[in-house]
Amino acid sequence: MGKLLIVGTVAFDAIETPFGKTDKILGGAATFIGLAASQFDVDAAIVSVVGEDFPKEYLDLLEKRNIDISALEVVKGGKTFFWKGKYHNDLNSRDTLVTELNVLADFNPIVPDGFKDSDVVMLGNLHPNIQMGVINQMEKRPKLIILDTMNFWMDHTLPELTEVIKKIDVLTINDEEARQLTGEYSLVKAAQKIFEMGPDYVVIKKGEHGALLFHEEQVFFAPALPLEDVFDPTGAGDTFAGGFSGYLAASEDVTFENLKKAVIHGSNLASFSVEKFGTERMLDLERDEINIRLHQFKALTQFEIELQ
Amino acid sequence: MGKLLIVGTVAFDAIETPFGKTDKILGGAATFIGLAASQFDVDAAIVSVVGEDFPKEYLDLLEKRNIDISALEVVKGGKTFFWKGKYHNDLNSRDTLVTELNVLADFNPIVPDGFKDSDVVMLGNLHPNIQMGVINQMEKRPKLIILDTMNFWMDHTLPELTEVIKKIDVLTINDEEARQLTGEYSLVKAAQKIFEMGPDYVVIKKGEHGALLFHEEQVFFAPALPLEDVFDPTGAGDTFAGGFSGYLAASEDVTFENLKKAVIHGSNLASFSVEKFGTERMLDLERDEINIRLHQFKALTQFEIELQ
Repeated sequence: MGKLLIVGTVAFDAIETPFGKTDKILGGAATFIGLAASQFDVDAAIVSVVGEDFPKEYLDLLEKRNIDISALEVVKGGKTFFWKGKYHNDLNSRDTLVTELNVLADFNPIVPDGFKDSDVVMLGNLHPNIQMGVINQMEKRPKLIILDTMNFWMDHTLPELTEVIKKIDVLTINDEEARQLTGEYSLVKAAQKIFEMGPDYVVIKKGEHGALLFHEEQVFFAPALPLEDVFDPTGAGDTFAGGFSGYLAASEDVTFENLKKAVIHGSNLASFSVEKFGTERMLDLERDEINIRLHQFKALTQFEIELQ
Repeated sequence: MGKLLIVGTVAFDAIETPFGKTDKILGGAATFIGLAASQFDVDAAIVSVVGEDFPKEYLDLLEKRNIDISALEVVKGGKTFFWKGKYHNDLNSRDTLVTELNVLADFNPIVPDGFKDSDVVMLGNLHPNIQMGVINQMEKRPKLIILDTMNFWMDHTLPELTEVIKKIDVLTINDEEARQLTGEYSLVKAAQKIFEMGPDYVVIKKGEHGALLFHEEQVFFAPALPLEDVFDPTGAGDTFAGGFSGYLAASEDVTFENLKKAVIHGSNLASFSVEKFGTERMLDLERDEINIRLHQFKALTQFEIELQ
């Protein structure tokens, strides 16, 4: 059982999809990452910040899953980060209606002493300076540092983002962001350029079209499981990151062969996350359901072929 | 070695991509299907029509690959079907600049006697009445009838298309067309609706995002090989259909397990087709290259996973 340090937002989300809408519910990258990672035998901690308005029951939910929240700062009198968004009919695009940074604006992450020797560090989507601040607090070099980011940081803080990308092992971004970051349309070429920036591994997330893992000259592809209904894509990418990093921390094996398995575990958990609003599906998810769907992933992609 | 009957256009294409443009070159669905299918040990014939302007060297190209062209009618004084198109920068969409039906306008397909007992019939994208006319000429029910179509026929000849779809085993269409045909956004639901229309199998082509094969409650997915450069997508779907149908005719096995392999062979050949203009890459393709890339397909998708 390895140690996993998770850094990211813990937040309120309000979501509208073609199938319904929610009031403020539990959200945030670190929340989704933590819930997914807790499916594995891992010693996980979340570094994040919330306001005094954050319900104790949400904190309890995380603790009940053995996630260390001693470094989840609760700011007295502060308000929790809030995001409100509305998905378009195809669920592939969305409009952000409200972003209130609140306590996130002054977030200064403190890595707990017991996690300064973490095996895997999962840096959720945040300002690159915060991500760098966490790396700098580590007492020994983690086996694997994984960083998730998005186009917003490429638009506004590219020099800072470039600095932190130099320090990491795995970059996870979506296809459009990979193209924006590198100026290459071909994802194969984009991955090669990202290798030159620092990371040894690149995961390119393509949403309903699956995810690609690049390493040196090798490529591995995990499809998204074809689903009858996708209800709410919020948190799917973070759930992927949680399954990916949680599996790697639990297995303490950061070879390419094992990263392939981690991509499958991440895709598998993400396929559940989209079935209900927010974290709802991840909270009632059973081990048996996970295993059945892993079998479906195998059936979906495995074949025997003889050469001509 | 089974018999494969191919019906579709043999044509001139003029293509413009961000990387260059061509004058009139060899094109047409049946051409791409035939070239791909001829990579397998199959007894293939093309039923089609060209004008007197069609170069003998193009006919020789097909014959040299052991494709029976006795039912490829050459209309005296007629002009060959011509399509001209221009791809946008991302290569995912294109504008049709010219469509001259010419001899195709009065095409009346005649199935050669030696192919009225074909094992597999591959109906390339054409007016559904022509596709139906070919089915009606078969003396015994083929093991597998595969039909490719496109949105144009859904827009203009939906009743005729619906009739022919009742008679077939495999429908191959792209994702947007599957949604248009069924009114279902979810491809899983779209496939279920298509089953109700007649076919036992549905192949949904997603271009650079791969292809899905549906059968009853089962799904199989073949990714597109991530390529450094895509030069010209023209004919990729037809090359897929040619590899798919050619492999099935050669192996004379139409089980789901074997259709999975056929999807891989089709995807593999399509990955070459896009590397040069028109049929150019398919004409210089060597067996060794095909086998190397089949290994890459395996490496791309195969994994071992233990349950939790």
